[in-house]
Amino acid sequence: MSSHGQAAWELLLPAAAAPARRRGRALQEALREAVRSGRLAAGTRLPSTRALAADLGVSRGLVTEAYEQLTAEGYLRSDRGAGTWVGDAARGRPGGTPARGGGAVAQSADPTTRARGIVASGADPATRARGIVASGADPTTRARGSGAPAVRVDFRPGTPDLSLFPRAAWSAAQRAVLARLPHPSLGYPDPRGVPELREALAGMLTRRRGVVADPERLVVCSGVAQASTLLGFVLRARGLDAVGIEDPGSPEHGRLFASTGLDTVWLPLDEEGLRPEPLAASGLRAVVVTPSHQFPSGISWSAERRAALLDWARVVDGYVLEDDYDGDFRYDRAPVGALQGLDPERVVYAGSVSKSLAPGLRLGWMLVPEALLAEVVERKRTMDLGNPVLDQAVLAEFVTRGAYDRQLRRCQRAYRERRDALLSALAEHLPGTGVSGIAAGLHVIARVPGRYGPPERFLARSAEAGVALRPLEEYGTARPGDGDVRLVIGYAHLSPSVVTAGIRRVAEAVARG
Amino acid sequence: MSSHGQAAWELLLPAAAAPARRRGRALQEALREAVRSGRLAAGTRLPSTRALAADLGVSRGLVTEAYEQLTAEGYLRSDRGAGTWVGDAARGRPGGTPARGGGAVAQSADPTTRARGIVASGADPATRARGIVASGADPTTRARGSGAPAVRVDFRPGTPDLSLFPRAAWSAAQRAVLARLPHPSLGYPDPRGVPELREALAGMLTRRRGVVADPERLVVCSGVAQASTLLGFVLRARGLDAVGIEDPGSPEHGRLFASTGLDTVWLPLDEEGLRPEPLAASGLRAVVVTPSHQFPSGISWSAERRAALLDWARVVDGYVLEDDYDGDFRYDRAPVGALQGLDPERVVYAGSVSKSLAPGLRLGWMLVPEALLAEVVERKRTMDLGNPVLDQAVLAEFVTRGAYDRQLRRCQRAYRERRDALLSALAEHLPGTGVSGIAAGLHVIARVPGRYGPPERFLARSAEAGVALRPLEEYGTARPGDGDVRLVIGYAHLSPSVVTAGIRRVAEAVARG
Repeated sequence: MSSHGQAAWELLLPAAAAPARRRGRALQEALREAVRSGRLAAGTRLPSTRALAADLGVSRGLVTEAYEQLTAEGYLRSDRGAGTWVGDAARGRPGGTPARGGGAVAQSADPTTRARGIVASGADPATRARGIVASGADPTTRARGSGAPAVRVDFRPGTPDLSLFPRAAWSAAQRAVLARLPHPSLGYPDPRGVPELREALAGMLTRRRGVVADPERLVVCSGVAQASTLLGFVLRARGLDAVGIEDPGSPEHGRLFASTGLDTVWLPLDEEGLRPEPLAASGLRAVVVTPSHQFPSGISWSAERRAALLDWARVVDGYVLEDDYDGDFRYDRAPVGALQGLDPERVVYAGSVSKSLAPGLRLGWMLVPEALLAEVVERKRTMDLGNPVLDQAVLAEFVTRGAYDRQLRRCQRAYRERRDALLSALAEHLPGTGVSGIAAGLHVIARVPGRYGPPERFLARSAEAGVALRPLEEYGTARPGDGDVRLVIGYAHLSPSVVTAGIRRVAEAVARG
Repeated sequence: MSSHGQAAWELLLPAAAAPARRRGRALQEALREAVRSGRLAAGTRLPSTRALAADLGVSRGLVTEAYEQLTAEGYLRSDRGAGTWVGDAARGRPGGTPARGGGAVAQSADPTTRARGIVASGADPATRARGIVASGADPTTRARGSGAPAVRVDFRPGTPDLSLFPRAAWSAAQRAVLARLPHPSLGYPDPRGVPELREALAGMLTRRRGVVADPERLVVCSGVAQASTLLGFVLRARGLDAVGIEDPGSPEHGRLFASTGLDTVWLPLDEEGLRPEPLAASGLRAVVVTPSHQFPSGISWSAERRAALLDWARVVDGYVLEDDYDGDFRYDRAPVGALQGLDPERVVYAGSVSKSLAPGLRLGWMLVPEALLAEVVERKRTMDLGNPVLDQAVLAEFVTRGAYDRQLRRCQRAYRERRDALLSALAEHLPGTGVSGIAAGLHVIARVPGRYGPPERFLARSAEAGVALRPLEEYGTARPGDGDVRLVIGYAHLSPSVVTAGIRRVAEAVARG
């Protein structure tokens, strides 16, 4: 191994000694932490995959995979054939202190030096679709009222399969919690959340999502929607008057931020992420993004765009809200690590159990930059004094027991099968349809060729046949006008046979006269 | 019975036929509803208690009790010896439609004519004390850190006895809910709350608190604190810039309303309620009050002041937030009915399970005037999309099974015993101490004569002895300067023996040198 690899080599040894089934992930975590902490400085050239594999005594494939994953996440950059370097996107806290305990789990500064804080959760894209429904504008319901056919297959995105909720395991965890919780825990909560849950979530998120998850900067909240509202109030109080949102993206953000006094501004995406020039020209100082699996396009942001976004945030002294609404569901490779890991002082990370367990639990989390923490916590306190304690304790129990990981695996298997059923059905019944965003998440983007009829007719016929579809144009400003039908198709909540029957029903409806 | 009593007589017959143990309450409910609905018009003279008792075939004591209770609540007025009349404080919805179903349970207009709405709950006085603690200013904790003695007996008000939380019954209800809840109920909630809970709460509140509780205007929320914040945002959006609060009262309201952009203004109380002149001169259009058991003074507002407050609200086109933080706990007679029943279009009623079950559940309710309903619901939606569904379903189960009533009776028995222990201990160990606000609630006001030492010394000696006490002056602007020590003593969370030991310890500490 070359000389500049020495620090990495030492740091990576414990990972290389991990049990075989965890070794790949441990290696990635250790490498990520080495970059984040500054032990591998920006510009450092990494050893070749062959050399590092030999030094560590692991397979070359494992090292290659680690380099590729971290390059995708923006920690490393590579010139095909010329080598791999440590990128300069990652910024730990000022001073880049080493990891706590030196292990593979990233933590990033002495907790005693930090103010105590909170993080909440809230507004998922699912929520967004629901927001429209909840405000009484559900076209299906209206149609039903006026004699139109009832919805038989609802492909509108946003809801997980609620029948996958692990009732027995949740019930067992509830019993265990009520049996052991000390009486004082039933009193007024810490507005940041129950300590045992913040610990459990910090560990889980560090492991699964590559974030810097300090329990002291984690605030339990009611979901990504509440995270948006909390952050919105804090930014408004700091004088901001608008927040950028991805185009295409979620119009629900507009309603949430409007409630805090902030406007929203659409910012154009391309196939790599937010386009840098319009962002730079916007005059904004805050944006909401979904870099791991963009909603609704389904792209994963490129490493360059991740780095560019963080550069922008530093230049304008701004903040990024990372809505990690379905980061856990990736079907064909490991999930892309969260943006927050690259700069926890510029990124507010938000997630929830709405896709993995149930939206009705209203339980999520935020990781908050130090500079915003006290204000976010005080907002959470005046908003509701903190989340209910029993559900928090149950989720902590659930995560700690490994039941949360089991649930994610269970959902992932089910959803992959449904996605495959959808792709097969589209290929068979609506051949020529292009699909994208299929690698992850609970929905895909389908582009149905114009030969199946103009969009209005296509949607009307589908609705008449009892199939609810949501066009992509409801999620942004683009109106291509090329005659193709662009759809955001949610499949996760439907069984494979229903998915197949629904697409067949659409094909039959649009084929008629 | 005299001619003007005819309408009442018919309306009251079903109540008179109720089983003996419910007859008194049924009679009061029927009479309240007759006034509210306009079937007994303002100014109508009621028959004598003897005549009505004879007509209805019930005991005269029952009728006398009903007249007294409704007079205390402001529905009736009486001139001792001259008779009893229907008062003019009560205003139903415009038009004063008759009760739904005509039974003893008060409901007050065709539900189809009302917009669908929501009501949430939130900020208890307990919260207020906690608010100070949560923000890091807990003097006890600080004292402990600096080597001072630990708190052994904590008389600061605000927390119920958490060991009374009915764990087994709650656990059973959780199991039952998870076994029966349909899958779709686990999805994104109705921001107003789970329908079965809104039904159950409306019934319970109508029965127990004499409110007009239409499930369509009930919004489930996280407690009285959130109710305050929700209402604050709505009033701010309507152009209000301040809210009046009772003096003495809860400083925590200041922080909650400040988060919505509203100032708070202290309004002086006397022994009957808010003084009308300062209220009229304030220029305000909204106030928060605790008329059933004023916090912290413990008075129950007089009927005249209740009526005057509602008159004021109508004249200024304003609103009253009724914080019914402990209305269920009254020890020596029936609870005083809530103010909201007199005018549900001017009063926002808020309550929670924080005193009856546990603050950690973060579960409460609001009853919202028609004119504010849509705005409150939209605020609730953007704040958190609605409360968690499982806890809501469990509470619905709990109320419907009668377990909530059993819990209230259990708490009431325990708290009455503790109150009695406190009064005995004060009489024995600090003789000469005056107590007030003892008829209800979880705390009393004690006025310890100056001969036990000046207030600063009294509090310092008590703290040194490990007894935490909160002076009344922390709850308002009054500084009598007469040398007496005025304390707000919370007793509900302490066993009788601890209460007694705590007061003895204070007496010993202040008696030393």
